[in-house]
Amino acid sequence: MSTLLPPTADDIRAAAQRIAGRAVRTPLLLAHHLSEAIGGTIFVKPEVLQRTGSFKFRGACNFIASLDPAVRERGVVAYSSGNHAQGVAAAAGLFGIPATIVMPSDAPRIKLDNTRALGATVVEYERAEELRERVALEIATESGATIQPPYDHPWTIAGQGTAGLEIADQAAEQGAALDAVLVCCGGGGLTAGIATAIDAESPRTEVYTVEPAGFDDTARSFASGTRQEAEPGAESICDALLSRMPGELTFSINSRLVAGGLVVTDDEVRDAIRYASERLKLVVEPGGAVALAAVLTGRFEAAGRTVAVVLSGGNIDPGMLAEILGSPRS
Amino acid sequence: MSTLLPPTADDIRAAAQRIAGRAVRTPLLLAHHLSEAIGGTIFVKPEVLQRTGSFKFRGACNFIASLDPAVRERGVVAYSSGNHAQGVAAAAGLFGIPATIVMPSDAPRIKLDNTRALGATVVEYERAEELRERVALEIATESGATIQPPYDHPWTIAGQGTAGLEIADQAAEQGAALDAVLVCCGGGGLTAGIATAIDAESPRTEVYTVEPAGFDDTARSFASGTRQEAEPGAESICDALLSRMPGELTFSINSRLVAGGLVVTDDEVRDAIRYASERLKLVVEPGGAVALAAVLTGRFEAAGRTVAVVLSGGNIDPGMLAEILGSPRS
Repeated sequence: MSTLLPPTADDIRAAAQRIAGRAVRTPLLLAHHLSEAIGGTIFVKPEVLQRTGSFKFRGACNFIASLDPAVRERGVVAYSSGNHAQGVAAAAGLFGIPATIVMPSDAPRIKLDNTRALGATVVEYERAEELRERVALEIATESGATIQPPYDHPWTIAGQGTAGLEIADQAAEQGAALDAVLVCCGGGGLTAGIATAIDAESPRTEVYTVEPAGFDDTARSFASGTRQEAEPGAESICDALLSRMPGELTFSINSRLVAGGLVVTDDEVRDAIRYASERLKLVVEPGGAVALAAVLTGRFEAAGRTVAVVLSGGNIDPGMLAEILGSPRS
Repeated sequence: MSTLLPPTADDIRAAAQRIAGRAVRTPLLLAHHLSEAIGGTIFVKPEVLQRTGSFKFRGACNFIASLDPAVRERGVVAYSSGNHAQGVAAAAGLFGIPATIVMPSDAPRIKLDNTRALGATVVEYERAEELRERVALEIATESGATIQPPYDHPWTIAGQGTAGLEIADQAAEQGAALDAVLVCCGGGGLTAGIATAIDAESPRTEVYTVEPAGFDDTARSFASGTRQEAEPGAESICDALLSRMPGELTFSINSRLVAGGLVVTDDEVRDAIRYASERLKLVVEPGGAVALAAVLTGRFEAAGRTVAVVLSGGNIDPGMLAEILGSPRS
């Protein structure tokens, strides 16, 4: 069991105050065309419009804001495939502290470049789970910097949960009673935060995770009741969701609060990216499009229901987006 | 002189109430990367997120809502290169009245298709100004439907002006004192509405028009003091901004309230579309990207200033977007 306690709804409310004025309060947009096509009421929460292009800034900012100032000034270290990296780099920049990011060398070029442009020091490594943690630990030990976990920490989860508070508030403002919220799931931090916020603010709303095929470790962990690993050798275009296993803390939260786990294929994700561009006018990266794919494919039956779909990030390589937009529907 | 009176700020406020719950209150987003790159405070108003993917829904909805119910039920007729068509079709659908749209056969396929999908009858014509008006008039005469002007009517202008009210309100909510608002300009309806709203709500804020090269009829009309025509034979990728001359009513408003007219090239527009996709995560059509292009190129000097840039529409053919994203910067 994790020695860390799950964040409470009050912790998420405190995080919202901590990041206010730094993070974007992204809108909750009624998707007219999608709603009419499906016969439901579908909202999207475009975290692509968040600072650094993904929800990760929320957790990164709350984490750094929560550090003791004397500790904070020694800086932070993070390992990330990209979005957490940019979130940490931008948040560290706002607080004027150094950030070192350990990134896989095969991460999308746009994520590596953007992280450097945000002022962080980037250390590249060959993708192998044990290595990146060791590299990060060495840097932290030498510099006195704090390792900033991408998902399995209450401060990170509380930060991500601010998106859930906003969803609940913004749905109520628009007179909508949400039946469900669909969230992409890698390590489970965004889900855990949103599920905690929704449980407190809108307890009759169900939360579902959506994962790419081959990386459905969370869905299979729900089914078995214990944490399961992703399929050995699995591949996916959803570079933001390639975690091997749910986090300890996140799974302890999600196994209690999440209604179910859905899975979509890479081709379905490509269709969702194309739909988002053509109809929603939003640029969504593969990992950010899985929840939308679940609605478009009917994997989640949204007809007659009121649903919020989180579009978690938009940091897709322009070449990949061009290729998807230029190719026929699958 | 036009026999129609310009709308007042109160007319725009009434329009805002009329379209509330039908139109999207699009956010005013602080563009962090752009602000840092330029050394100013740059907001974007993404009307790409508006119903039907452009601001045109605002004016179309206000116009139809303003009709006498007995007249309204006989339907509406409009001629449009595309965005007005979709706005009218969607608004007519909401009111349950028939809409006939006269569209140029060379309009982007996505706009023709979307207009039909919204339930309107589309009549295609070969692009030639006198013809489309005659076609529309014949249909209106036969059916008793009302011709719905794309820009040169106070109800249309008041509807577009609701975007200006929102900009003023949303800037104030975020504690920003706007120095300028940059608006794309075809016939001038959006500019006239926004300029009227800004003049009332934020009188120290300057409004500028931005047009594509060759279609800078408004800029040249400002310079000469009388309405000028676009360059004969000019071409541009900005299909939404190919009007030949400022409207009578819109020019009477804009010549009084607008601080100046800026011009950008098609290549600069392509760069702005690419920037919007990569950094703002928004899909913007050529005509919707001219104001952003003016800031990116320095045509408008935004350093040290607080500026709102209207991204007026996102209905770009996916193939064109793919080609722009896949090609090197100009």
